[in-house]
Amino acid sequence: MTVSENFAASSEGALARLAAVIESRKTVNGGDPEKSYVARLLHKGPDAFLKKIGEEATEVVMAAKDADHGGDTSKVLYEVADLWFHTMIALSHYGLTPAQVVAELERREGTSGLEEKALRKVQARSQQEGESHA
Amino acid sequence: MTVSENFAASSEGALARLAAVIESRKTVNGGDPEKSYVARLLHKGPDAFLKKIGEEATEVVMAAKDADHGGDTSKVLYEVADLWFHTMIALSHYGLTPAQVVAELERREGTSGLEEKALRKVQARSQQEGESHA
Amino acid sequence: MTVSENFAASSEGALARLAAVIESRKTVNGGDPEKSYVARLLHKGPDAFLKKIGEEATEVVMAAKDADHGGDTSKVLYEVADLWFHTMIALSHYGLTPAQVVAELERREGTSGLEEKALRKVQARSQQEGESHA
Amino acid sequence: MTVSENFAASSEGALARLAAVIESRKTVNGGDPEKSYVARLLHKGPDAFLKKIGEEATEVVMAAKDADHGGDTSKVLYEVADLWFHTMIALSHYGLTPAQVVAELERREGTSGLEEKALRKVQARSQQEGESHA
Repeated sequence: MTVSENFAASSEGALARLAAVIESRKTVNGGDPEKSYVARLLHKGPDAFLKKIGEEATEVVMAAKDADHGGDTSKVLYEVADLWFHTMIALSHYGLTPAQVVAELERREGTSGLEEKALRKVQARSQQEGESHA
Repeated sequence: MTVSENFAASSEGALARLAAVIESRKTVNGGDPEKSYVARLLHKGPDAFLKKIGEEATEVVMAAKDADHGGDTSKVLYEVADLWFHTMIALSHYGLTPAQVVAELERREGTSGLEEKALRKVQARSQQEGESHA
Repeated sequence: MTVSENFAASSEGALARLAAVIESRKTVNGGDPEKSYVARLLHKGPDAFLKKIGEEATEVVMAAKDADHGGDTSKVLYEVADLWFHTMIALSHYGLTPAQVVAELERREGTSGLEEKALRKVQARSQQEGESHA
Repeated sequence: MTVSENFAASSEGALARLAAVIESRKTVNGGDPEKSYVARLLHKGPDAFLKKIGEEATEVVMAAKDADHGGDTSKVLYEVADLWFHTMIALSHYGLTPAQVVAELERREGTSGLEEKALRKVQARSQQEGESHA
């Protein structure tokens, strides 16, 4: 396997290709709102796909709760894919890429670094709340 | 750069490594809820991280609306990373991986396939609603 | 105006009347999913209206962010009404009433009591987080 | 019972009183962010309470799913109260009142009017989607 084949076969390849397809659905790139779901969301503007992000997040939660009660976890997978898909439409609209999201996650990664930001947030809140209730 | 170095440097590497770190935070794998944010969420159980998914989705929407009104798009990137991060904690809990999410997205990918599911959903709803209001 | 006329004209009257209309839309009460939006949501079952709650909450947030940036606050009012409306459909499904929600809010009301629960939650979290990061 | 006693005992009284308490928590009205949860949310600004609306909506959904699987419906009631409570903080911030929300719901009420808006929305979407997929 060559380097480029490896790249093409990787998840990054998949996310990058999907991002490229979404990009091609923009009205300015010839996307047709009458024929493509993504083109329609992009054409309608942010509120259309942002609302979907709220809805799909809720569907992830519902599928997860069903799985907690014995339901199929493949439903969770499916709904997370829907959620990531709609966030990728938003990324495209704001000129961002999934590679940047992954790079941001990577930046936070590592035994010490992964939770750095989450911990900082929690500690800041904890400190603030601790003070205010003292 | 060798093939394996390329792989290590790829996003798939990044998502897989992050998933492995999250996996190591499970209580059964020795994760310590007192020291790790992820370990604490996993230890508390689904409601803890599912609530975060709802919250982080809302933060994506708020950052996006700010960007619509002239704010910094890097905030959107940051919040999407937070959202993906918390969905990855959920994936881990349900024995799923980001590679499976990417594979599911890839399965739907392609000029004809990408929007297959979304379109099917919309069309089904459209047909149903069309009928019921006829 | 008599006491009962006053009651009928009050908000409790309005919420109770709306709850009664929703109740009448249940399939078991003769609600027709082909003719009524509420009947359709109730007939489809919980996931249908729960998804709407996630979506409408997101719409409240979007309208609020627009208002923050100079938009019309009447949009916020409208979206909150949508959100309350869909939560009332859920209440009906679970055999609950808006009067019980108001009673629960009233129970928490008062200079000392209003924020009792919210504060308890925050303090518990604060304490827990304070300990775990000590 | 006199008319005013009846009013005081009604839900409208309860919602109006709660709205007045929230109003008194605004920084300009002397609310102390160090002592009051509501004052802190109002002081922090919109993003603080909007994020809570997303989170509380998710908690309603989680409690509802638990109830679907045999859990206690009183949890649903409790979470809806939390959601309404946080939307009332938002209403206060934007100069709106729960009485206006109830009036808006009442405006839509009635056999023919209740679902007017929801139906219009669904029909518009249905028509639009029907066209675009024709």
